[in-house]
Amino acid sequence: MAKYVYFFGSGHADGQANMKNLLGGKGANLAEMVNLGIPVPPGFTITTEVCTLYYANDHKWPEGLEKEVTEAISKVEKAMDKKFGDPNNPLLFSVRSGARVSMPGMMDTVLNLGLTDETIKGLVKQDERFAYDSYRRFIQMYGDVVMGVEHDLFEAAIEKAKHEANVHYDSELTPKQLQDLVKTYKEIYKNATGKDFPQDPWEQLKGAINAVFSSWNNDRAIKYRKLNGIPGDWGTAVNVQTMVYGNLNDISGTGVAFTRNPATGENYFYGEYLMKAQGEDVVAGIRTPHKIEDLKKEMPAIYAELEAIYLKLEQHYKDMQDIEFTIENGKLFMLQTRSGKRTAAAAVRIAVEMVEEGLIDEKTAILRVAPEQLDQLLHPMIDPNFKGTPLTKGLPASPGAAVGKVVFTAQEAEAWQEKGEKVILVRVETSPEDIGGMASAQGILTARGGMTSHAAVVARGMGKCCVSGAGDLKVDFSKKTFKVGNTELKEGDWISLNGSTGEVFVGQATLIEPQVTGNFAKLMNWADKYRQMGIRTNADTPEDASRAREFGAEGIGLCRTEHMFFKDNRIISVRKMILADTEEKRRNALEELLPYQKSDFIELFKAMKGLPVTIRLLDPPLHEFVPHTDEEQAQMAKEMGCSVDEVKAKVHSLEEFNPMLGHRGCRLAITYPEIYEMQAKAIMEAACALNKEGYDIVPEIMIPLVGDVKELHYLKEKIEQVAKETLAANKASFSYKIGTMIEVPRAALTADAIAKEADFFSFGTNDLTQMTYGFSRDDAGSFIKDYMEKKLLDSDVFATLDQTGVGSLVKYAVEKGKSTNPGIKLGICGEHGGDPATVAFCHNVGLTYVSCSPFRVPIARLAAAQAAVKNPR
Amino acid sequence: MAKYVYFFGSGHADGQANMKNLLGGKGANLAEMVNLGIPVPPGFTITTEVCTLYYANDHKWPEGLEKEVTEAISKVEKAMDKKFGDPNNPLLFSVRSGARVSMPGMMDTVLNLGLTDETIKGLVKQDERFAYDSYRRFIQMYGDVVMGVEHDLFEAAIEKAKHEANVHYDSELTPKQLQDLVKTYKEIYKNATGKDFPQDPWEQLKGAINAVFSSWNNDRAIKYRKLNGIPGDWGTAVNVQTMVYGNLNDISGTGVAFTRNPATGENYFYGEYLMKAQGEDVVAGIRTPHKIEDLKKEMPAIYAELEAIYLKLEQHYKDMQDIEFTIENGKLFMLQTRSGKRTAAAAVRIAVEMVEEGLIDEKTAILRVAPEQLDQLLHPMIDPNFKGTPLTKGLPASPGAAVGKVVFTAQEAEAWQEKGEKVILVRVETSPEDIGGMASAQGILTARGGMTSHAAVVARGMGKCCVSGAGDLKVDFSKKTFKVGNTELKEGDWISLNGSTGEVFVGQATLIEPQVTGNFAKLMNWADKYRQMGIRTNADTPEDASRAREFGAEGIGLCRTEHMFFKDNRIISVRKMILADTEEKRRNALEELLPYQKSDFIELFKAMKGLPVTIRLLDPPLHEFVPHTDEEQAQMAKEMGCSVDEVKAKVHSLEEFNPMLGHRGCRLAITYPEIYEMQAKAIMEAACALNKEGYDIVPEIMIPLVGDVKELHYLKEKIEQVAKETLAANKASFSYKIGTMIEVPRAALTADAIAKEADFFSFGTNDLTQMTYGFSRDDAGSFIKDYMEKKLLDSDVFATLDQTGVGSLVKYAVEKGKSTNPGIKLGICGEHGGDPATVAFCHNVGLTYVSCSPFRVPIARLAAAQAAVKNPR
Repeated sequence: MAKYVYFFGSGHADGQANMKNLLGGKGANLAEMVNLGIPVPPGFTITTEVCTLYYANDHKWPEGLEKEVTEAISKVEKAMDKKFGDPNNPLLFSVRSGARVSMPGMMDTVLNLGLTDETIKGLVKQDERFAYDSYRRFIQMYGDVVMGVEHDLFEAAIEKAKHEANVHYDSELTPKQLQDLVKTYKEIYKNATGKDFPQDPWEQLKGAINAVFSSWNNDRAIKYRKLNGIPGDWGTAVNVQTMVYGNLNDISGTGVAFTRNPATGENYFYGEYLMKAQGEDVVAGIRTPHKIEDLKKEMPAIYAELEAIYLKLEQHYKDMQDIEFTIENGKLFMLQTRSGKRTAAAAVRIAVEMVEEGLIDEKTAILRVAPEQLDQLLHPMIDPNFKGTPLTKGLPASPGAAVGKVVFTAQEAEAWQEKGEKVILVRVETSPEDIGGMASAQGILTARGGMTSHAAVVARGMGKCCVSGAGDLKVDFSKKTFKVGNTELKEGDWISLNGSTGEVFVGQATLIEPQVTGNFAKLMNWADKYRQMGIRTNADTPEDASRAREFGAEGIGLCRTEHMFFKDNRIISVRKMILADTEEKRRNALEELLPYQKSDFIELFKAMKGLPVTIRLLDPPLHEFVPHTDEEQAQMAKEMGCSVDEVKAKVHSLEEFNPMLGHRGCRLAITYPEIYEMQAKAIMEAACALNKEGYDIVPEIMIPLVGDVKELHYLKEKIEQVAKETLAANKASFSYKIGTMIEVPRAALTADAIAKEADFFSFGTNDLTQMTYGFSRDDAGSFIKDYMEKKLLDSDVFATLDQTGVGSLVKYAVEKGKSTNPGIKLGICGEHGGDPATVAFCHNVGLTYVSCSPFRVPIARLAAAQAAVKNPR
Repeated sequence: MAKYVYFFGSGHADGQANMKNLLGGKGANLAEMVNLGIPVPPGFTITTEVCTLYYANDHKWPEGLEKEVTEAISKVEKAMDKKFGDPNNPLLFSVRSGARVSMPGMMDTVLNLGLTDETIKGLVKQDERFAYDSYRRFIQMYGDVVMGVEHDLFEAAIEKAKHEANVHYDSELTPKQLQDLVKTYKEIYKNATGKDFPQDPWEQLKGAINAVFSSWNNDRAIKYRKLNGIPGDWGTAVNVQTMVYGNLNDISGTGVAFTRNPATGENYFYGEYLMKAQGEDVVAGIRTPHKIEDLKKEMPAIYAELEAIYLKLEQHYKDMQDIEFTIENGKLFMLQTRSGKRTAAAAVRIAVEMVEEGLIDEKTAILRVAPEQLDQLLHPMIDPNFKGTPLTKGLPASPGAAVGKVVFTAQEAEAWQEKGEKVILVRVETSPEDIGGMASAQGILTARGGMTSHAAVVARGMGKCCVSGAGDLKVDFSKKTFKVGNTELKEGDWISLNGSTGEVFVGQATLIEPQVTGNFAKLMNWADKYRQMGIRTNADTPEDASRAREFGAEGIGLCRTEHMFFKDNRIISVRKMILADTEEKRRNALEELLPYQKSDFIELFKAMKGLPVTIRLLDPPLHEFVPHTDEEQAQMAKEMGCSVDEVKAKVHSLEEFNPMLGHRGCRLAITYPEIYEMQAKAIMEAACALNKEGYDIVPEIMIPLVGDVKELHYLKEKIEQVAKETLAANKASFSYKIGTMIEVPRAALTADAIAKEADFFSFGTNDLTQMTYGFSRDDAGSFIKDYMEKKLLDSDVFATLDQTGVGSLVKYAVEKGKSTNPGIKLGICGEHGGDPATVAFCHNVGLTYVSCSPFRVPIARLAAAQAAVKNPR
């Protein structure tokens, strides 16, 4: 017959840490502490299997459970030298749920169980006030949890009592007043349930255990499980444990502590305690707790015991622990131990130092730091001591913090910055023309656009703080002001942004600069040692490329050439190309662009010092390169030497209903092959020039938006022709690669055919997500917030790859692609490439590399290492 | 050892019709005719296997082939009583390719083979002019095809000869002049090849056979195979056949004929012939051919023989035959027989009459009519005798033809029509507000938009002729004119549209009205008997619904509720709903719409007389319901009792970058559940009202744009609540279904999860195609034409489902959906539902029904029947 009840206490436990499935997390951990010889209030755990049997058996206990519980109680009685139901020295229990995984606050708890009109006498002997207060709390909790008596009825009664006693706090009620309140509570209980409050402790215990089982299937627990993917048949264990009281007398107390400093990671015992207090008093902050080192003076023996215990726990769990303890009547009990939460800096320091101490190995250290946390270490942040009230909140589009004066146009941002001013660029949304202004600003704030809007993507690439989609912002460009509610700010006013939370503050917040310490570098080296995927960066400029190399990037996975089209006077040539009504005129305009592009690529190749560089040919629709205001159009007509009507007609003809799904990417080059021919020529000429200087460059030319192999085939032929001619003209000979983005669902679905023509795939998961979901990232802000509120989406699908839907396409394309081209290189260059969960997914489906914005390179390195440690290929 | 050569002639053939893989189509068919006892010029076929060996063996003949060819020639000599190379009575050959499937014009042919300076003497005896003309043709063809001598060199020589002879036509050259030309040709040959023209007929034959083999791998043949998916290793057979000459003398001639009238299907011998002529003369139209019945008088014996043959061929092939014959010196030879092309009317009549004659069975009759052809029978068409030159050509967006006067606005279309004028509505593009005008017009012409643009979809639904995306059209609304090149047309000018070809004509074309004869109905009944899929229609109005029922629809697969929102004054309530800034105001506005929607649904249910009706809840983004011009916005502000600024602000806030991927479909209802609640209530109240009148209605409520099961679950709960309440309030009890569109790729990818919550799936292949390809159908017109020109797309993916990409998603979703919900109903309601290839695909992947616009219902019925006959489930 199965064992239903597991005892723990007095230096022996039936269970241990690895029995979480049977005993739940809490039960297994209590057993483990006991086995380590650590003092824990004795008790016993009823297994999760009993819960399952309870439901299978019409809410009845299985045969034999009652006997096992009785026996376990005897053991506890022996360990505590108290008796359950003893009027002289009663043993009291807490009854708590405990599932395999933590479901905080979802299920029920009953404390002080075992108090009756008889047993209270034993407690009264110790402290009358404490005794009646415990009893009234028990009646309320039991009535609420076990019998479903309205919580408010009890609350109203105690409020009435306080009013009559003319006091403010519960703690000011006298023992007599509390005794009366117990009577009132018992009446409330009887009125609500039709029964007297049970005076049999055993009946109390059965009721509480059943209540915990039943709470496994309460509404909020069911919803929580559904949301977190926890199976309903796991069931919960029930932990019945001796009550200990830190508020019993002057040699009682309670505290919480960490085995190392959770803010800095420094290796010393760190915590707080309060004498004559219960756990919640430390947290509540009614009295100021003492530093843990004061306990050394106040109770040296207890402190010595505690010190031995914390060292033992850290050695045992091999991680920084967050512990809770209670001292009852001069005796120390440990109530909980668990891995402690910590800041990024602390996480890195603890992980590295624990390796140096020989406590853990490098692989374990890698797993100890959450990659996402590293972001804190790479950007300035708002001083945690800064106490501002946010004016509004947008999306945390690019991490870090920024302080500056409000400006409303890119031109002003540049002008003010030249005058030495720090500015925040405030726009409804940004466009490629704003790039210069964005670069000049400390941070960017937009009223529209999501996590992957233009502003967000560019800002992340620049490592610049950005808050996007702050919908409450009403910008009035003509008056150079913006309003949030009734607060109006004007050009030149100071504001502060927190790009990691989306908060916007009026005024100047104090900032903390990032610190990349030696420990950081050590951890990153270990990550590089164990990871199996390459890490590249998305970089369009030599500056970005250099920064990314400093952060450890091993190549460029995505260079977007279109940003180059806006620099200096190039836009004039671009517009000539767009206005051209013959192929010849178009070729002439492109010829003007060629030297610019060539020198761009030379700089980029140089910055990457021979590391691979993937260059994506022109992707955005042509209308992004033409002006849309009357004034700018007039200016353009002047520059082009044509009529304003001609400009307007062209701009109009380029308008599209859904530009995202329009004439862009390789579709442009199907219509105008000469555009890609020029770009291919510029790339090959740049490589030839550097080849002569001794660089060893293998250019990777990437064609965007392919949906059918015929598109790739058609353009590849043209590019190969140009490459051949350029190599011949330069008497050069080196290899180059031609590959494609996989960003249209159909490309993923037909990846086997496409792989035959491609040297590499790069998954463009931004567009792939947009098309697979049918979500325009520029518009989704308006409804995604409703989805989040209604829990219809767990996370932002533009930040973390949707593995179920979009991910299944990626997986399919990887398999299909490899089936026809086993040597194909596979990468990802969407925004998701810097998201740890996505990086793990990419490792698991077998990608060759991930590419992300420069500032996320360290995050991706660590995430890739973790994936490799957990699931080596 | 394999047999390489198959003889045919003199009433015996080694091969037969079912040996196409080995003998090619032509060879197998010639053998078949011989086996039927039909006179065919004797010859032999060298198998496709030899072609494969030829390539495998470095362009050498396999061992034994030469012997078999020699033996076959002997048999032909015996059959013809002529000798190959005989100077007195030479046997001459044609050498032709013949693959398994026809590859017209892709490979090479040599005629008159066997002529030399010796053998010509035998021919000269018959007719000197004919002899030299044949010889000079042979030298040219052999030089060109076998030796690669420039065709132009010979052409220049004959031009020179004609110039010197001062004549216009080749046929005016005298025998002597032709004899000289032969000499010149031989010199050209020698200059180009360095060799004398071969005087050994056997050498000629070997060269010609090898040339045919080689032509299997010429550039155009390779391209053709690639385009048509023909494997390169099939190879071609070579047919060596006795030359016969219809131009030999006065008792020679040639003709083409059909066993029934290919225009009407009437059952009589129909054709033309010319005496003393070659095949191409009949086609070329230099002389007017005679009717075939005249041959009865001219050559009664030959006619009788021909009559017996045509009857035998039709009986044998059990289909109307298109035959070619030649009479050489009073002897009849059949050169070819094949199934004849025919008009839709003829196809239907022939199929039905052949069943009645007992020649074929009903299933065969079903397969004999191309479903697409039926369209001709359902719409007016331009008289084939109308000889206009198209002004321009757009996309054939909705079939049929229309003649009317140009108007430029929907309002004018309605006004002119009320005055009794026939009008064509000319727009840049149409929007839902134009519906009334479209209904009033004879046809619609738009300058922008593809095959599935608003104009196209609505016009097809109305069965109205539409030409869309006529990009050459420059419309000037202010002047009420449009221009194509230099031609300007103004309001009131007559134009004609051919919606089946996309042609636009100036002036009034004559039209032919559709005729749905008794044979049509018979064929449709057989189709219904054999098909295994249901056929529904997409219909939004009782008129559409009734028409579709007349065409045989068995239910409504898609009723778009949004069109109803524009009728009468409803748009005011819709706009109130949109402007509402609280849920209460929104609910009030929706409350106003409820009775309208309810009565719409009552009418629709009535029109369908209890057949199933699937109603799609609101799909388009809200900005489609607000006005976009200043004038209209001012009008709206007046109606709403609010400021113009408020209207403008709202309209602005609804603007989206990519509305296709924006806040629409179920996403609207996630934000505003009250919209779907109102619609569900209207549907259920309508069903309750009719239920009381004895109708048996099972409403099918369809939720659009679902991408994740959570969306469906959330909305389904709300709809079920409304349904329960409505049934209770009406004391009614009947079942209803709630299902979803599968139109977002992610829905297809997660169909297993979605199917658990859905009673039915309806594949919305329009949107599914847009998102899977990343093609916006409203914008794709600008680049799809380049794709078509460059052969990067075989067909319009919005007309015929892309089975490789989009189809694989449909198939995946069907399998996944059935895996979790085996009883799920599966339909398609995209525009593709009326495309025969797509209907066959739907049958094969196991859909329950297809739904298409009313006018395509008969097409879908026939296509579904064909699919079921070919591949029964």
